[in-house]
Amino acid sequence: MIRVGVFGAGRMAQDHISNIQQSQIAKAAWIVDPNKEVGAAAASQFNTTHFERAEDALARASDVDAFVIVSPSATHLQIIQMLLELNKPIFCEKPIAVATEQVRACIDMLKRRPVPFLLGFNRRFDRSISTLRARIGEVGSIHTIDITSRDHPCPPLAYLRTSGGMFYDMTIHDFDMARWLLGEDVCEVYATGSTLILPELAQFNDIDTSVCVLKTKSGKMVNIQNSRFAAFGYDQRIQVFGNKGLLSSENLRPTTVQFLGEKATHIDNPYPSFPTRYAEAYRQEMLHFLKDVVRDKKEPSVSAIDGLWANLIADAATRSLKSGRSEQLDPL
Amino acid sequence: MIRVGVFGAGRMAQDHISNIQQSQIAKAAWIVDPNKEVGAAAASQFNTTHFERAEDALARASDVDAFVIVSPSATHLQIIQMLLELNKPIFCEKPIAVATEQVRACIDMLKRRPVPFLLGFNRRFDRSISTLRARIGEVGSIHTIDITSRDHPCPPLAYLRTSGGMFYDMTIHDFDMARWLLGEDVCEVYATGSTLILPELAQFNDIDTSVCVLKTKSGKMVNIQNSRFAAFGYDQRIQVFGNKGLLSSENLRPTTVQFLGEKATHIDNPYPSFPTRYAEAYRQEMLHFLKDVVRDKKEPSVSAIDGLWANLIADAATRSLKSGRSEQLDPL
Amino acid sequence: MIRVGVFGAGRMAQDHISNIQQSQIAKAAWIVDPNKEVGAAAASQFNTTHFERAEDALARASDVDAFVIVSPSATHLQIIQMLLELNKPIFCEKPIAVATEQVRACIDMLKRRPVPFLLGFNRRFDRSISTLRARIGEVGSIHTIDITSRDHPCPPLAYLRTSGGMFYDMTIHDFDMARWLLGEDVCEVYATGSTLILPELAQFNDIDTSVCVLKTKSGKMVNIQNSRFAAFGYDQRIQVFGNKGLLSSENLRPTTVQFLGEKATHIDNPYPSFPTRYAEAYRQEMLHFLKDVVRDKKEPSVSAIDGLWANLIADAATRSLKSGRSEQLDPL
Amino acid sequence: MIRVGVFGAGRMAQDHISNIQQSQIAKAAWIVDPNKEVGAAAASQFNTTHFERAEDALARASDVDAFVIVSPSATHLQIIQMLLELNKPIFCEKPIAVATEQVRACIDMLKRRPVPFLLGFNRRFDRSISTLRARIGEVGSIHTIDITSRDHPCPPLAYLRTSGGMFYDMTIHDFDMARWLLGEDVCEVYATGSTLILPELAQFNDIDTSVCVLKTKSGKMVNIQNSRFAAFGYDQRIQVFGNKGLLSSENLRPTTVQFLGEKATHIDNPYPSFPTRYAEAYRQEMLHFLKDVVRDKKEPSVSAIDGLWANLIADAATRSLKSGRSEQLDPL
Repeated sequence: MIRVGVFGAGRMAQDHISNIQQSQIAKAAWIVDPNKEVGAAAASQFNTTHFERAEDALARASDVDAFVIVSPSATHLQIIQMLLELNKPIFCEKPIAVATEQVRACIDMLKRRPVPFLLGFNRRFDRSISTLRARIGEVGSIHTIDITSRDHPCPPLAYLRTSGGMFYDMTIHDFDMARWLLGEDVCEVYATGSTLILPELAQFNDIDTSVCVLKTKSGKMVNIQNSRFAAFGYDQRIQVFGNKGLLSSENLRPTTVQFLGEKATHIDNPYPSFPTRYAEAYRQEMLHFLKDVVRDKKEPSVSAIDGLWANLIADAATRSLKSGRSEQLDPL
Repeated sequence: MIRVGVFGAGRMAQDHISNIQQSQIAKAAWIVDPNKEVGAAAASQFNTTHFERAEDALARASDVDAFVIVSPSATHLQIIQMLLELNKPIFCEKPIAVATEQVRACIDMLKRRPVPFLLGFNRRFDRSISTLRARIGEVGSIHTIDITSRDHPCPPLAYLRTSGGMFYDMTIHDFDMARWLLGEDVCEVYATGSTLILPELAQFNDIDTSVCVLKTKSGKMVNIQNSRFAAFGYDQRIQVFGNKGLLSSENLRPTTVQFLGEKATHIDNPYPSFPTRYAEAYRQEMLHFLKDVVRDKKEPSVSAIDGLWANLIADAATRSLKSGRSEQLDPL
Repeated sequence: MIRVGVFGAGRMAQDHISNIQQSQIAKAAWIVDPNKEVGAAAASQFNTTHFERAEDALARASDVDAFVIVSPSATHLQIIQMLLELNKPIFCEKPIAVATEQVRACIDMLKRRPVPFLLGFNRRFDRSISTLRARIGEVGSIHTIDITSRDHPCPPLAYLRTSGGMFYDMTIHDFDMARWLLGEDVCEVYATGSTLILPELAQFNDIDTSVCVLKTKSGKMVNIQNSRFAAFGYDQRIQVFGNKGLLSSENLRPTTVQFLGEKATHIDNPYPSFPTRYAEAYRQEMLHFLKDVVRDKKEPSVSAIDGLWANLIADAATRSLKSGRSEQLDPL
Repeated sequence: MIRVGVFGAGRMAQDHISNIQQSQIAKAAWIVDPNKEVGAAAASQFNTTHFERAEDALARASDVDAFVIVSPSATHLQIIQMLLELNKPIFCEKPIAVATEQVRACIDMLKRRPVPFLLGFNRRFDRSISTLRARIGEVGSIHTIDITSRDHPCPPLAYLRTSGGMFYDMTIHDFDMARWLLGEDVCEVYATGSTLILPELAQFNDIDTSVCVLKTKSGKMVNIQNSRFAAFGYDQRIQVFGNKGLLSSENLRPTTVQFLGEKATHIDNPYPSFPTRYAEAYRQEMLHFLKDVVRDKKEPSVSAIDGLWANLIADAATRSLKSGRSEQLDPL
């Protein structure tokens, strides 16, 4: 039984802990969360121990085989730093940090003290998306990739205020998808956007609707459409066009029930939100960490470098949003 | 933690035990299986105890909160009989028995010694099918129900030889669906069939392809198509036609990946087999047993009477297959 | 320019005449219809001549290259008889007659005075259905065929009273489909039905909802579901199951517009009625008659014998409806 | 019977003439084409007269009620100029001209000598697309429009060399769609592109794969993806996202036949090319011209101003392609 030390006890953390327990090969050894109530409730629910301070938990680090970081994004880097010297596998929910320099700092630390480190880009573990990736050769040479990602429901303004902005908080997943699917480095980015949903976002220079166009040296293009809102559910689609055809992954719907009434044929809308849409992906992500990385000592499939690449694209998109022109990526 | 005594350690039993363990509110206390190797392997996999003889297990019945019967069908009735006096909730994989008189015997025993008893008609717990049932009012007054059930892959002849025949082994699920969806008793059945897949089945008077037409007193009809084989996967569809529309549940497919190649557009075939297609339904079925029936003492949603009804329809279908005419149902 | 003499000027006739004119290789030379207003209106619309009496039109038969019969069904046989001696190609809307003995009489006449004779089973000319027929080898050996045909809107009682009954008026198309797709003679039929939509139909021994099961000597089965009503449009689907797969033709919908609203995803219902659903099939049927049969003197693709077969199946279905048992087909 | 004078006898012209004849309310009075063989063949096929020189045809202009211009694009303006003084309705295949100054010249001429003038943006007459337009209010306030247009098969290099370039020849349709659907002027355009299919295009500064992002003053965005090639057929899709939902028009497929084989489920690819995909739209476009504009003297639904707007967007896209930044539209 793999014993896991968990940082964070919020909603996202609870999902990860539930997946740990259900794996039947691991259990949460303890949870760290400065919030007394939240931490105690989670500890009780999952039959484990709660610490308010990381130091107290780490005093018992020898009881633990691996770490899972699901605390607020701003704390990730500091926790990673504490954990590195313990030399045990780390799963870190995305992002490592919003600021690219902090991501670079993390990579430097990992170079000096290498431990197995898995970054939580959950979409890579989705069955439809990973099948698309596995079968991507069917399209031949890639011409264009089209990525649609619309959130639902729209996150509250309080969350958005500290989210790091649309490109770092949301499009970052699509930037990772783009790189993962392209098989070629992105070198240039154009981005534009508007506040069509939450005008208040303009106050802190954020947007809620955007289009990005990424380009590789050989001229392949990735077209990303994002919105903080979709009336019909969580909209997640990818299309890869190549000289031999089009490979796509479409939205998932909760049931296959259809109703043909007097006016129209009704089918289910896409899943309503990311926790329902990607529930299975989060499960597979944790199984990859526990079974492949911790137990079987295989290479983690998403690295800190992947996180850095996504940040570099977000940096260029941010510059483009201001300049109105396409911008080159900073070097790795 | 609910402690469950399990009868059977075969493939189907292993799926049920895995669902018990993953529920996080229950665990298998022991497994009974006369096969030493199979039983020991399952006990080891699920970290529990194996008994070869029921008597030895039942000597420890006081340690147990509920029973799950997943042994061969022919043993169900005898095990139920043994368990009834222990006065604990029972989950019994379908069927109670192939012979209708044995199902009646079980019902009589349950009348004398009532315990919570859940019969394992798994499809009732499928998300698409149960949603269809919940929304059935949308069609208004039902005219016709169309049920398609094609197995894949075709079971081996050795299995089919002792299966009880197509109507009792396979169509029994569709007969239960018919009653569950109709909201009105079936009173008349016509059945016809052929051996188009496995000619050897004719030797023991069985068929592999069939059409059944059920009728209620008010004239509603249920049309059931069955086959022991479908080249393209496990085919499970229901359509309910009424005066206000058509409500259907369509096949599920493993992914939403589409490929538009030079010749055609390819989408995933339906799930390849019942364990993959109904994995989530089996999970929900066990959660209903553990959470609702055992823990919360709610009424089981599928009763032994439901099992009897399905058998009565199968009896009439069997008579019709011989007579070439529609046959009335025996009284309950 | 092929000159066509047309019998009938009703709605169906107008569709056929419109298709004749649009073909650009033919025109209606005259129309016969005993109804003065209807006939005159059609003649004016299509810029042709109207006769109230067939005799007057046939006096000018030498001006004409072919005949199209779209008069009421009860008049078909008599008109055919008149036309045969003129030795010109005949297109006859289905059915030749409701009574099988009259169909046999027509076939006898055609044997004595053979002329090119095309029977109007329009579905054979539908692009999706004819493609399904052309590709039927892909399923390998056929096991079961499933045919769904639901009318919309429900025809008025006045029409149904003289329609000949569901099997002869409506299911007749499906019986023809069955034979055309099977490639093997039907030898046995079971039929059952109810009046769930128009209870008044019971007065003249007709039904509005039915299930038929056809069987061939080798055990292949055809399952036909019919209804005089479908809340959601004209429902026309065929599925052919074989040892290599399932080939189907699904409903057509007027547009590909989708709306994903807050509650559900809406797509178009199937076409609302047979004239819209099969508009293109009627066009192709007439082009087959004009181009292939009349101009190029090719064999008509639907013969009077095809009409007789469909009637023989309808006869057996009618007997089965009364007897409650499967019935053998009469010999050809 | 409306008599139409037609300029052009090539493949596109033949389609238009066929639609004129099939309308049954009009006929081609004569055809002008400098190519003797092509013109004579078309005249013979459609039973009309051929002139090699416009002057000879126009000498008989009094016999004619309307004009249809389907000659090569470079000749449109000159023909329009000749026709204007005859004061009869004109249908002009798109574009009026590639050069925006020539389009402006045409508009000036039309102001001086106003005649009913219909510009042939065929997509506006497509049933799915025009239904999408009619129902666009269902999405509430528009946020983003996504237009996919991929050609198939790739036109020959000889055609592309004189086509005016991707934006003027192909994207022009999408620019018109954007304006027509937005209900608000486009004010800014970003465009990028590559030569991924035909490297030879780089020689004459053209591209074969592009992404354009259009923006309105209020921040609505239109995302257009184009390719000169799609392995799987002619790809034509529109999605309109708004605060109440998503309204889309999807690809049309020739049949509804599905095959579920051992490996996958196959459905028809989209229509293979624009003449098949938009056959019905071209028919409706001509009926609009003949019935609404010529016969009933209604306003043409696509004006020369619409053509100018599309050109202005193409101009800005062309500038953006060079500058690498978003460009403002020139004033009308």
